[in-house]
Amino acid sequence: MIETAIIEKHGVGRLKDPVMVTGLPGIGLVGQVVAKYMIKKLGGKKMADLYSPHFPHQVLMTKKGGMRLLKNKFYLIRLKKRDLIIVVGDVQAITGDGQYEVAGKILDYAQKHKVREIITIGGYSSGKMSGEKKVFAAANSEKVMKRHKDEFVFGETKGSIVGVAGLLPALALIRGIDAMCVMGETHGSYVDPSSAKAVLEKLAKLFSFKIDMEQLEQEAKEREKMIKKIEGEIEKQAAGGNKDITYIR
Amino acid sequence: MIETAIIEKHGVGRLKDPVMVTGLPGIGLVGQVVAKYMIKKLGGKKMADLYSPHFPHQVLMTKKGGMRLLKNKFYLIRLKKRDLIIVVGDVQAITGDGQYEVAGKILDYAQKHKVREIITIGGYSSGKMSGEKKVFAAANSEKVMKRHKDEFVFGETKGSIVGVAGLLPALALIRGIDAMCVMGETHGSYVDPSSAKAVLEKLAKLFSFKIDMEQLEQEAKEREKMIKKIEGEIEKQAAGGNKDITYIR
Amino acid sequence: MIETAIIEKHGVGRLKDPVMVTGLPGIGLVGQVVAKYMIKKLGGKKMADLYSPHFPHQVLMTKKGGMRLLKNKFYLIRLKKRDLIIVVGDVQAITGDGQYEVAGKILDYAQKHKVREIITIGGYSSGKMSGEKKVFAAANSEKVMKRHKDEFVFGETKGSIVGVAGLLPALALIRGIDAMCVMGETHGSYVDPSSAKAVLEKLAKLFSFKIDMEQLEQEAKEREKMIKKIEGEIEKQAAGGNKDITYIR
Amino acid sequence: MIETAIIEKHGVGRLKDPVMVTGLPGIGLVGQVVAKYMIKKLGGKKMADLYSPHFPHQVLMTKKGGMRLLKNKFYLIRLKKRDLIIVVGDVQAITGDGQYEVAGKILDYAQKHKVREIITIGGYSSGKMSGEKKVFAAANSEKVMKRHKDEFVFGETKGSIVGVAGLLPALALIRGIDAMCVMGETHGSYVDPSSAKAVLEKLAKLFSFKIDMEQLEQEAKEREKMIKKIEGEIEKQAAGGNKDITYIR
Repeated sequence: MIETAIIEKHGVGRLKDPVMVTGLPGIGLVGQVVAKYMIKKLGGKKMADLYSPHFPHQVLMTKKGGMRLLKNKFYLIRLKKRDLIIVVGDVQAITGDGQYEVAGKILDYAQKHKVREIITIGGYSSGKMSGEKKVFAAANSEKVMKRHKDEFVFGETKGSIVGVAGLLPALALIRGIDAMCVMGETHGSYVDPSSAKAVLEKLAKLFSFKIDMEQLEQEAKEREKMIKKIEGEIEKQAAGGNKDITYIR
Repeated sequence: MIETAIIEKHGVGRLKDPVMVTGLPGIGLVGQVVAKYMIKKLGGKKMADLYSPHFPHQVLMTKKGGMRLLKNKFYLIRLKKRDLIIVVGDVQAITGDGQYEVAGKILDYAQKHKVREIITIGGYSSGKMSGEKKVFAAANSEKVMKRHKDEFVFGETKGSIVGVAGLLPALALIRGIDAMCVMGETHGSYVDPSSAKAVLEKLAKLFSFKIDMEQLEQEAKEREKMIKKIEGEIEKQAAGGNKDITYIR
Repeated sequence: MIETAIIEKHGVGRLKDPVMVTGLPGIGLVGQVVAKYMIKKLGGKKMADLYSPHFPHQVLMTKKGGMRLLKNKFYLIRLKKRDLIIVVGDVQAITGDGQYEVAGKILDYAQKHKVREIITIGGYSSGKMSGEKKVFAAANSEKVMKRHKDEFVFGETKGSIVGVAGLLPALALIRGIDAMCVMGETHGSYVDPSSAKAVLEKLAKLFSFKIDMEQLEQEAKEREKMIKKIEGEIEKQAAGGNKDITYIR
Repeated sequence: MIETAIIEKHGVGRLKDPVMVTGLPGIGLVGQVVAKYMIKKLGGKKMADLYSPHFPHQVLMTKKGGMRLLKNKFYLIRLKKRDLIIVVGDVQAITGDGQYEVAGKILDYAQKHKVREIITIGGYSSGKMSGEKKVFAAANSEKVMKRHKDEFVFGETKGSIVGVAGLLPALALIRGIDAMCVMGETHGSYVDPSSAKAVLEKLAKLFSFKIDMEQLEQEAKEREKMIKKIEGEIEKQAAGGNKDITYIR
């Protein structure tokens, strides 16, 4: 495998004015918890897998004796008015140009399904530990900002957005697709279910769906455990590599 | 040379229901010792060489005054019922995307020869120093797991499998090829002939071949010596590079 | 996105004997301050954007709630006798081969518009803190040197020119395009408006334009602020990456 | 520029049974001193330039106010019986896959001119400070070794040959070209004219040319000075990069 590839299991037919929503690993795991929870509670169906040579070159063993490649996944959630394509995954690309390549392929897939709006979900570290969590946003055009200015807080964040959550909306602009990054306010150093809840409530209102929040905390704990497992593997490998042999795996 | 390339010396004709078995450098050198020993004892014939720009950019000098490129090699062992394609080599790719590229080319070669089953051999560090060595496995599908559940121990390993031993079966799934990684239990910090022996016995039963184990210990010592030589060269170069000049070799 | 791409908004028609002038981030921010100030004061119009997977994989959030990709930009300034294509940008490529790729694409664009002369602007650290600032140059051929020997100081610099400011004229020679690097003398460790002013005066004479220098100091301060912001983001990310997770962004 | 490219100034017609001899920067600068001295004393004519995005992304300023890209160069020396294509250069590729790419392009060029024999020249660190310097060799086939066994010392070296000096003969074997690496014995930590002299004498005998050695020491000093200048530039840049800004050049 030399390039990032998206493999679609079977056709899904024409989608209803689809929106793409991404929740990949990042600050406070906000995006990942939100996206995974939506898939579970709203009955998401797997559409496609994305594999990349820019993901870590290892596979995870499962409890039952299986194994799986690190990947990103696309799920379809059919709502009343619109369809949602949810993007989740264990990892992001480990190199800079790998990040651009993966983001480009995700956009190809969005265009294939005539997606006209993309929302990436991330966390924004405000250092705030408790109290109400704001939901910030940064849009890829003024038009998008105006459309959503009553729903999200624009202009109160600064700095940069790293990885797919930032590259996707910024590259979408070049292709003429409306997009924004929605960021749950979070302390940043651990998984934050209250931030994920705040984002979920906004999305539920935006797309007119109902979702019960009861198992959100549990979802957050599972996500944290899984991510720590993957991180642990990567670190163990890196540590071993430094001490002993690096090119003989 | 810009891409990984496999060069086949001469045609081998149609193979009998071939299985690919890989034993590249890794934990406890289990895979490498098993694969090399099978080639010696079962009369493996060289089929092809794999060269890659993702292997270290140096050549090894031989005792007689020759030199050789670092590479992976394919050998053919003709058994009564099936043919085995054994993959061995001095090194694995040094970059993450190089690992994916090499694994992809090995799969291309497997498909060229209509391989329907792939077994990668590795070691699994349980920390166990003595006593009977278990032979674990992780399969790329439930179907494969069921087929082999009486021969190997599934579901007792955790963590990740790094490099070709993991990537190959996981990528094989995408191409519809049955595959699993077979792991000899080992302490992990040195070459382990007893683990290699345990794996060999399982393979002998699986593929109905007989193999005498008398020279296995000696094979293990030779493998360890060769690997240490290659490692030493790489380290010497890396050390020199850091101290003095890095881009002028 | 897999390769560096230049996107031209709309055609600009045939240009009058166009010269390309680049001012990307570098020593003393001399090139960047000169180029940005020319665009402001001489009414430059945006021609095209250059995006690259070799730029950092992050986007900058704007004060108003927007976001933008890191990029290089082309502006057109129409002078009486000749047209100028000014190249500016936030960053340069972060890898060596990325630098060559970006320089190659900029040359493709120059050739598309039949540019016959390229001037890259940089700073040259002489350690000199005060007094009159010299304007040095290094040409890509003797012919170019002779043509400009009365305007710039040739042969008083030594060492190397790193990045686009050096690669562009050197690679231009292969394509038969006249080019040189013009370097404002500077202390080197901070932004230097006096060096930028010295370079601007030379260019004004060379291309027969008038430019008021009153707001140059302010321009320099803005440039410094912006660059520090971008650097801060990159460093923050790098620091976080080293401490915690590197591949999960 | 995305790939390594060789640019030939003008045709050279058919060559007389040509041999390629390379002398790129390496241990004791043996290869570089030998090759450069042969070009000077035997009247080498420039044939072609090799540029690569895998060379450092900077240009060197010349004393006169010019600049030049880091590159490798091909020279033609016409001897009575055979023609020699000499390969020299300031640098080698800075990445592993860059090394393979450059070596591959040099072989393409050799094949274009129907070269049937390649000799790479390097140094071999024996730690020996004084006394007669041996000239070792490692061949890419037994046939080559037999042909040259009276001229060079085979089988007394161990370890690996790093970079183009090793990759070229090893990759040449795959293309069916005879090749070997000739190594002058040297202490290794500084430029070694006595080792270069020993190699030159062997080559003079092998190819039946006469060469006066009087200015060899001076050549060695010039090479050392130039290499130190290039190294200094790279280090200065690397140091600056670590302390301050890395991606803004």
